[in-house]
Amino acid sequence: MPTISTTLAPELAVGDWFNTPAPLTLAALRGRPVFIHSFQLLCPGCVAQSIPQVQRIERIFGHTDLQVIGIHTAFEHHAAMSPVTLRAFLHEYRIKHPVGVDLAEEHSDTPITMQRFALRGTPSSVLIGRDGSIVHRVFGVEEDLAVGARIAMALSAHIPDDATNTSGDDGGCSGGTCEVPSRGAA
Amino acid sequence: MPTISTTLAPELAVGDWFNTPAPLTLAALRGRPVFIHSFQLLCPGCVAQSIPQVQRIERIFGHTDLQVIGIHTAFEHHAAMSPVTLRAFLHEYRIKHPVGVDLAEEHSDTPITMQRFALRGTPSSVLIGRDGSIVHRVFGVEEDLAVGARIAMALSAHIPDDATNTSGDDGGCSGGTCEVPSRGAA
Amino acid sequence: MPTISTTLAPELAVGDWFNTPAPLTLAALRGRPVFIHSFQLLCPGCVAQSIPQVQRIERIFGHTDLQVIGIHTAFEHHAAMSPVTLRAFLHEYRIKHPVGVDLAEEHSDTPITMQRFALRGTPSSVLIGRDGSIVHRVFGVEEDLAVGARIAMALSAHIPDDATNTSGDDGGCSGGTCEVPSRGAA
Amino acid sequence: MPTISTTLAPELAVGDWFNTPAPLTLAALRGRPVFIHSFQLLCPGCVAQSIPQVQRIERIFGHTDLQVIGIHTAFEHHAAMSPVTLRAFLHEYRIKHPVGVDLAEEHSDTPITMQRFALRGTPSSVLIGRDGSIVHRVFGVEEDLAVGARIAMALSAHIPDDATNTSGDDGGCSGGTCEVPSRGAA
Repeated sequence: MPTISTTLAPELAVGDWFNTPAPLTLAALRGRPVFIHSFQLLCPGCVAQSIPQVQRIERIFGHTDLQVIGIHTAFEHHAAMSPVTLRAFLHEYRIKHPVGVDLAEEHSDTPITMQRFALRGTPSSVLIGRDGSIVHRVFGVEEDLAVGARIAMALSAHIPDDATNTSGDDGGCSGGTCEVPSRGAA
Repeated sequence: MPTISTTLAPELAVGDWFNTPAPLTLAALRGRPVFIHSFQLLCPGCVAQSIPQVQRIERIFGHTDLQVIGIHTAFEHHAAMSPVTLRAFLHEYRIKHPVGVDLAEEHSDTPITMQRFALRGTPSSVLIGRDGSIVHRVFGVEEDLAVGARIAMALSAHIPDDATNTSGDDGGCSGGTCEVPSRGAA
Repeated sequence: MPTISTTLAPELAVGDWFNTPAPLTLAALRGRPVFIHSFQLLCPGCVAQSIPQVQRIERIFGHTDLQVIGIHTAFEHHAAMSPVTLRAFLHEYRIKHPVGVDLAEEHSDTPITMQRFALRGTPSSVLIGRDGSIVHRVFGVEEDLAVGARIAMALSAHIPDDATNTSGDDGGCSGGTCEVPSRGAA
Repeated sequence: MPTISTTLAPELAVGDWFNTPAPLTLAALRGRPVFIHSFQLLCPGCVAQSIPQVQRIERIFGHTDLQVIGIHTAFEHHAAMSPVTLRAFLHEYRIKHPVGVDLAEEHSDTPITMQRFALRGTPSSVLIGRDGSIVHRVFGVEEDLAVGARIAMALSAHIPDDATNTSGDDGGCSGGTCEVPSRGAA
């Protein structure tokens, strides 16, 4: 049966989690659309623009099965943005959705999830469809009208029959950068 | 065959048109989603909030077949908001989409289209689906995320087979307030 | 006795007045600082920026003897911005300070007060000191910090001994454009 | 000789300084107006409102002898807001004026400068006159028009004859809270 070719999202690589009783995985969320917000707590554009937008998304789509996840993708000032500081930041900014700390890689300033998704910087966002594919990925903040339209489309998509049975589907990606051959072209 | 009951939108009642070579009718637009913006040029909330939102809608959805229509629904200060003033207003605010002047009724301050759609005041907006039904109607300005989501859903709806053959479909509504038995409860 | 050379403000030339029981003149206001706001009701920058700033000025300096005056200096779309429309505009935008309609001149689109003060367009503002001189004149909207600083300085200025006895002081200017030899250089 | 009674500002108590080659003291700044901005890097109101205002103050009054000083008055989340994090914060937010880290006191969460000035929280600001007295002190962010007016008045004040010879003037205050008998009433 012919299918439209899509890019299956790689799995998250997270150390500490906040605002969730248990770690989250995209594999376990298959069947639901997921909005991933990549940010750094000392990134002015994140604080002024993307975090307020994510909070609006939570409010407007709170009655749906959209899952919002923040990933703290520190790629600079690592000592300045420790989990201790992140915890206080989430408290002060009233961020209630699950936030994971992107896992550092030994020989790189860029943490692993950020590498896997080939994110250019912060803020970035990735919208993942019910089938686990990347619907949209963007560096910067898009207008609410466009973001709302994309989320609505992702929410309305039919759930494929095997959507909740995805064991091993993204195994090939667990090693890292397989989806994005050329980082520079991201 | 059972169908979901919907409210067919009444027809527009317009005197002068601006920014269009010919008058528009909802009947002729059947098959396309339509975003109707009801405003008054001396309404502060229209100038500060809803008109900028409509202009964002035009920009974000300009590549789709959404039709944006402004209706100048003056229900007060009639002498102050004549078509001469409206024409200059549209020029100064760079409003390029079709705008119709809601038709006055002899014995009422509220013009006819405003009555037909049971609009409570300005700004208001009405989203009409491809099948000619009212998808959403609201007094005031909603958040862009929600507006974008609704427009996306209206755009994605399948066009019913007979969508472009709608002669007479809304004839019963041409008399006015049939859809809204109690104006005060709108 | 040597004095610092200053530019005495020309007199206002106003037809209809709103929000005042009697016409205002700068001559009669000598001794008080005056903030003149030149606007047009169909000027987007006036509605979005300068009118809100003037309303902030009224609120912050309401306990002082600063006099705020609006002058409706229509230099285009004259038929669209009649006094009838202006009256409704002032009502809808909750403008409570005195507003005068700049007097039209027979052979010019630019009204007389606008010419006398050599204003380049709308919005413009003119700050007049206690001695009747022009302290500052600007086309566009300046930052509140700077505007607040200038008004504070104008308020703190000592009133010259003869400040309230100014009969004839600005007689030479009543004819019009004497202060501004070259309009184009304004 | 009778003088108007004023509240002499207490001295700053600072550990690390950033953006200055040498520590600053109010004693050494006597003769110049000083705008002190008390903030915390994880305080949302500081990031969204008061820091942008301070940067506007720097721009508008940059040609004057006003001295702007930031004091990082952390009174909560101390581990989360270390000097390492503050240094990165100042870099990312492009803060160029001198910033001092308020000195912690052994048995209090509230640091010493914050106690001396009886600040209620962050953001706060203190405007100090040329004579070293406190002109204005406020918790929260005031409107730019009012802030601009106050700074202009502080700038225009005559420098008292002995303003630059202040050795010992504020010695009585170096111990701490002498100016503010009742902290609770601040």
